[in-house]
Amino acid sequence: MKFSVTILGSNSAFPTSKRFPTAHVLNAHERFFLIDCGEGTQLQIRRNKFRFGKINHIFISHLHGDHYFGIFGLISTMGLLGRKSDLHIFAMPDLETILEFQLRYFYEDLPYKIIFHPLQANEPELIYEDKSITVESFPLKHRIPTCGFLFREKKHDARIKKEMIDFYQIPIRDIVNIKQGADFINKEGEIIPNNRLTFPSGQQRSYAFCSDTAYSEKIVPVIQGVDLLYHEATFLHEKADQAKKSGHSTSQQAAQIAKKANVKKLIIGHYSSRYKDVKPLVDEARTVFRESYPAIENESWEVPFITRDQVEAK
Amino acid sequence: MKFSVTILGSNSAFPTSKRFPTAHVLNAHERFFLIDCGEGTQLQIRRNKFRFGKINHIFISHLHGDHYFGIFGLISTMGLLGRKSDLHIFAMPDLETILEFQLRYFYEDLPYKIIFHPLQANEPELIYEDKSITVESFPLKHRIPTCGFLFREKKHDARIKKEMIDFYQIPIRDIVNIKQGADFINKEGEIIPNNRLTFPSGQQRSYAFCSDTAYSEKIVPVIQGVDLLYHEATFLHEKADQAKKSGHSTSQQAAQIAKKANVKKLIIGHYSSRYKDVKPLVDEARTVFRESYPAIENESWEVPFITRDQVEAK
Repeated sequence: MKFSVTILGSNSAFPTSKRFPTAHVLNAHERFFLIDCGEGTQLQIRRNKFRFGKINHIFISHLHGDHYFGIFGLISTMGLLGRKSDLHIFAMPDLETILEFQLRYFYEDLPYKIIFHPLQANEPELIYEDKSITVESFPLKHRIPTCGFLFREKKHDARIKKEMIDFYQIPIRDIVNIKQGADFINKEGEIIPNNRLTFPSGQQRSYAFCSDTAYSEKIVPVIQGVDLLYHEATFLHEKADQAKKSGHSTSQQAAQIAKKANVKKLIIGHYSSRYKDVKPLVDEARTVFRESYPAIENESWEVPFITRDQVEAK
Repeated sequence: MKFSVTILGSNSAFPTSKRFPTAHVLNAHERFFLIDCGEGTQLQIRRNKFRFGKINHIFISHLHGDHYFGIFGLISTMGLLGRKSDLHIFAMPDLETILEFQLRYFYEDLPYKIIFHPLQANEPELIYEDKSITVESFPLKHRIPTCGFLFREKKHDARIKKEMIDFYQIPIRDIVNIKQGADFINKEGEIIPNNRLTFPSGQQRSYAFCSDTAYSEKIVPVIQGVDLLYHEATFLHEKADQAKKSGHSTSQQAAQIAKKANVKKLIIGHYSSRYKDVKPLVDEARTVFRESYPAIENESWEVPFITRDQVEAK
């Protein structure tokens, strides 16, 4: 069961010859969640061989162009490719107005439905849930209302050992309970402890997306302990004033948040175009938080599935 | 004095890994006119090393996404690069409403002014004029209101021969008249014919852009005799029904228009993504009109400057 993030765009403000504006794809158990959608995202989706039809949920952090200008073309292309299934878009309410206006022109007869889910940037909110994943939005600190997103696996049921079913002759009706942690009592009244019957279940993997945002410790409790944190780092810390003024973070600040939140791994991105080489940004982050890495187009970050035993053994 | 068209995008509907949606740049005497602006146009402008600051006029044929989705990012990027001079946009009135709405979000404090020029698609209209170029819009036949554009050089003044100024001792006050065709009468009352005093002036070069459009002979008198005609050819003629239904043309139809209008050269484009190789489209056009060529990304079509003598000698 995969849990991996692919970077489609790492740049701020505008595309350059090497870097696209923001867009990420999270593959969580072969569900594909698109996070932000800068200009050229559909090109990058194609280049990374994601199937358009597999993307059913799009999350837009805020309505600055470099985070959503690609959505118009993407919606249109999905229609031209004959999409039938609903497309869910989570974004600030004004995007719905923009979309309604544009839809009248650019695709008169869209063959699928867009279901719009308005976000608010006042407090954390559960915005999506299915049998294996939850998505929470939470406020970031930017010039206009902006949300971060926290993707987290639900607790996995334990897998039952087949040979134990045979050995103890466990009836089917008891299996669900055992998967959820119950012991088994056999005909003789003997209690068979759950851990003899099951493989240990894994941890709940998690990914937090925080862009765009100024330095804000308010997000620390929300993203506490996540496996993968993407936090914008538009500037080097020598430009801390400019970062503050424009509602952005420095690389050092991103790392401070990662450290305070005790995350496993930090990915920085949303680089200012002035940094042709992003190594100085990564180096700066690593002075504060060692597990810092750069977002690079078409590279993926996988969170491996680790069982509870492996976690506890660490 | 250059007069050349560069193809930034040749595809219809959506970008593919090789082809971008519609955008052309006309360089007329180092004035750069952008015609249509599909998603990714700013990337293509960068790749072709056109300077953003040199583009002051954008012409949008119609409000289907593959002809204007790139304008939002382009406007934003021009702002981020510190543009100060006005940007003129010629398009259907609804684009102004879309832009006004979007501008509030994606760039709160644009450092330059957008001057919007609403088009109508009812009859030909002179929409732009400077000392050397005129631009006319004219109605095309598509599913929504759509304009073609005709760019034409004004009549050049003849260049005066310097040695004749000395030889006949021509006063400065007479030079303007001579450039515009007058003969010179010297102190002795002798008439020196204009053609002894000047180099012959050239033809008025012209470029017509016709996309998107179904086959329509109504445009023939408007584009009569242009040097370069870009006419969409979305389909092969075996798909003439589909072309008609969707308001597009076949390659054969584009060539028929070129032939009837007696143009010098036809460029076809706006290819359906089904045609990975566009050679069959070109071959089809050439059966009707020999001077047919394919639009290809990053290729330019220059109309050479030919003097009137050269034209007449042909």
